[in-house]
Amino acid sequence: MPKNALYAQSGGVTAVINASAWGVIEAVRAHPAHFGTCYAARNGILGVLEEEILDLDEEDPLTLAALRHTPGGAFGSCRFDLGDPQTHRAQYERLVEVFRAHDIGYFFYNGGGGSMDTAAKVARIGEEMGYPITAVGVPKTIDNDLGATDACPGFGSAAKFIATSVRETSLDVESAHTTSTRVFILEVMGRHAGWLAAAAALAQEYDGRPPMLILFPEVPFDKAHFLTHLQMAIHTHGYCVVVAAEGLKNPDGSLFSVAQSHDIYAYTQLGGVAPRLAELIRTETGHKLHWSVVDYVQRAARHLASRVDVEQAYAVGRAAVEGVVAGHRSFMPVIRRESQQPYRWSVGHVPLDQVANVERGLPPEYISPDGFGITAACRDYLRPLISGEDYPPYENGLPCYPRIRGVLRAQRCPQLRADEL
Amino acid sequence: MPKNALYAQSGGVTAVINASAWGVIEAVRAHPAHFGTCYAARNGILGVLEEEILDLDEEDPLTLAALRHTPGGAFGSCRFDLGDPQTHRAQYERLVEVFRAHDIGYFFYNGGGGSMDTAAKVARIGEEMGYPITAVGVPKTIDNDLGATDACPGFGSAAKFIATSVRETSLDVESAHTTSTRVFILEVMGRHAGWLAAAAALAQEYDGRPPMLILFPEVPFDKAHFLTHLQMAIHTHGYCVVVAAEGLKNPDGSLFSVAQSHDIYAYTQLGGVAPRLAELIRTETGHKLHWSVVDYVQRAARHLASRVDVEQAYAVGRAAVEGVVAGHRSFMPVIRRESQQPYRWSVGHVPLDQVANVERGLPPEYISPDGFGITAACRDYLRPLISGEDYPPYENGLPCYPRIRGVLRAQRCPQLRADEL
Repeated sequence: MPKNALYAQSGGVTAVINASAWGVIEAVRAHPAHFGTCYAARNGILGVLEEEILDLDEEDPLTLAALRHTPGGAFGSCRFDLGDPQTHRAQYERLVEVFRAHDIGYFFYNGGGGSMDTAAKVARIGEEMGYPITAVGVPKTIDNDLGATDACPGFGSAAKFIATSVRETSLDVESAHTTSTRVFILEVMGRHAGWLAAAAALAQEYDGRPPMLILFPEVPFDKAHFLTHLQMAIHTHGYCVVVAAEGLKNPDGSLFSVAQSHDIYAYTQLGGVAPRLAELIRTETGHKLHWSVVDYVQRAARHLASRVDVEQAYAVGRAAVEGVVAGHRSFMPVIRRESQQPYRWSVGHVPLDQVANVERGLPPEYISPDGFGITAACRDYLRPLISGEDYPPYENGLPCYPRIRGVLRAQRCPQLRADEL
Repeated sequence: MPKNALYAQSGGVTAVINASAWGVIEAVRAHPAHFGTCYAARNGILGVLEEEILDLDEEDPLTLAALRHTPGGAFGSCRFDLGDPQTHRAQYERLVEVFRAHDIGYFFYNGGGGSMDTAAKVARIGEEMGYPITAVGVPKTIDNDLGATDACPGFGSAAKFIATSVRETSLDVESAHTTSTRVFILEVMGRHAGWLAAAAALAQEYDGRPPMLILFPEVPFDKAHFLTHLQMAIHTHGYCVVVAAEGLKNPDGSLFSVAQSHDIYAYTQLGGVAPRLAELIRTETGHKLHWSVVDYVQRAARHLASRVDVEQAYAVGRAAVEGVVAGHRSFMPVIRRESQQPYRWSVGHVPLDQVANVERGLPPEYISPDGFGITAACRDYLRPLISGEDYPPYENGLPCYPRIRGVLRAQRCPQLRADEL
């Protein structure tokens, strides 16, 4: 009897992570000789520890297929990293207990760099704990900062939303600037990497409009330099769009704005770069301005998904399963760019250890010499990732995003005490 | 020889104001016996005063037709209200001078309540200054606060964007809430009227998900009451979405948050309700949260326009012209709801004086008894306004929004001195 497969989602979700889920589920079901049943853990690895195993056979097949166009994390996500096997042995014993109880032999973990570390740790359970488990990572992050892959599923759709919103709002500012708003500030996500901020530049047309200054986390914020360029843009065009990454840093390396220094999982929650910039610009230049912080709106905007992104998200889900069938273990599927013009891509795979905890920032050669824009090479890299539309179905004017029923399998292990791990 | 027509845009623009422009231009051109050439003023009434008259015959016909799907104000907008004819006679003399120089007999002004006041004042030029001019208003505002019309073009599309974004981001929060974000705050526009905030409720499905608290400008903010309901929602569902109008007020009537008290045109620029609410919730409950201020993004989001809204915007543009042909003067076309189920509408018209400076807030019977939601009557009213999609064409992954060339007619009047009006 083949072992069962378990799929789970981790970290910040994206507009297309569920397309990867569907890719995994569909592919597992297409290989009954290799896999038993496909289950999903609720809330990522936490759901394994807490033995919350969702029975996908209880779901309407149409709902599962609709995952391809449904944003959010249908099975629940978590911010939780497994500890070191030496110091947190109880965690691994518990994982084995739950895996064994549900006869899980395959674990597919859909997440970013931190989640790949967790997947890599699960992959070592076989050798360290004697329970045979094949762990595979499925890439996902709007930040586009995973190593070894040409692009990260989730990024292209967020990038498309940002570039579209910049194009649209800039027309608004352009029509208003004579007697009203001259500066529009859009704050986008990106703690360490400026990929999403860079995508805003795609909104610029051949004639360089709209005038735009991008503030990357990779480029220390130089107030005087920025204000000079802002005034120049306004002098020339009458208005300017400023796109700022949430992770913008001061010259001393501190964050330009920190909303909350610490939370329980030691992540820093950022936000508020735009209002701080607004205050600065208002004080120093007197220009009338508007600002926006799109936050989750940018990463959940499935209504404007990039078709390439949806297809790649689905493809890495399938490739994770098919790689296992082909005999691979402890790997993560990656997107490879086969050709730039026309854009062609394929799916390869790399060892999990190569991507765990790796962060890939915007390379210096992708940032223009003045520090406020992108180079032609960056534009060439980004453009295909936002291409194509993939509209969800609509009902009563709103996209239809069916929810899974979420039926849990009966628990077979002793309940976890809160202090146990 | 028939007199020429002049079209102009005023106030905050919308995703569909250019559809009205196209309706006016197309209809004027369809009635050569009634109208000479169709011109547009740059930057609204200011462009008339400054004699910036755009020659639309210089535009590519495809670009003009593309106005139907292009957001922003293609001809430039302004925030400028004409003064009282008794005290600002120079303004009216200048208008007559420019109208006469370009043989303008018809003035179509596309704007909100304040702009209808300007249109009404222009309409009186004939009797007060002896220069015959027919002035017609074309309704537009995302705030949906114009009187006498069932809906305001621009509102439906912004409402659709807000409801869609709430549905999408709520799925994000739902998947995150176990170990991370439990509250998501979305700040939407709406200085005095809660129509846009109300539209967020359309994102709720039959089962009441997502849990949502709406903070209307019409309902004084009661901190304790709000926090109690927030904690109840989180206790029941694990998370909550808070939608706050920028015009939220304290019990004493002051604004919950004012970004900038005054600007040169005496409008108050709001913003920052979401970060202030975030601070309050974080301090009082400790819940992890995210917040977003969509600002211009919501009103420029042509990529997600409501088809009904686009059609109504186009229809009021055409009706403005056709009303003139039918012999009406000094009026504004309005949308009339003929039938609720199925939704059917027609275009009527009302005198400009009836809509100038009128603001229509959310009626009390549209707000649920607890003050945080909408009633079934409000839902019935709102639902058809966001229905249907009307996607713009895309190129390289982004919507195509062609710009007009903007060729100015030769000036025939003496130049205006800055201090003259």
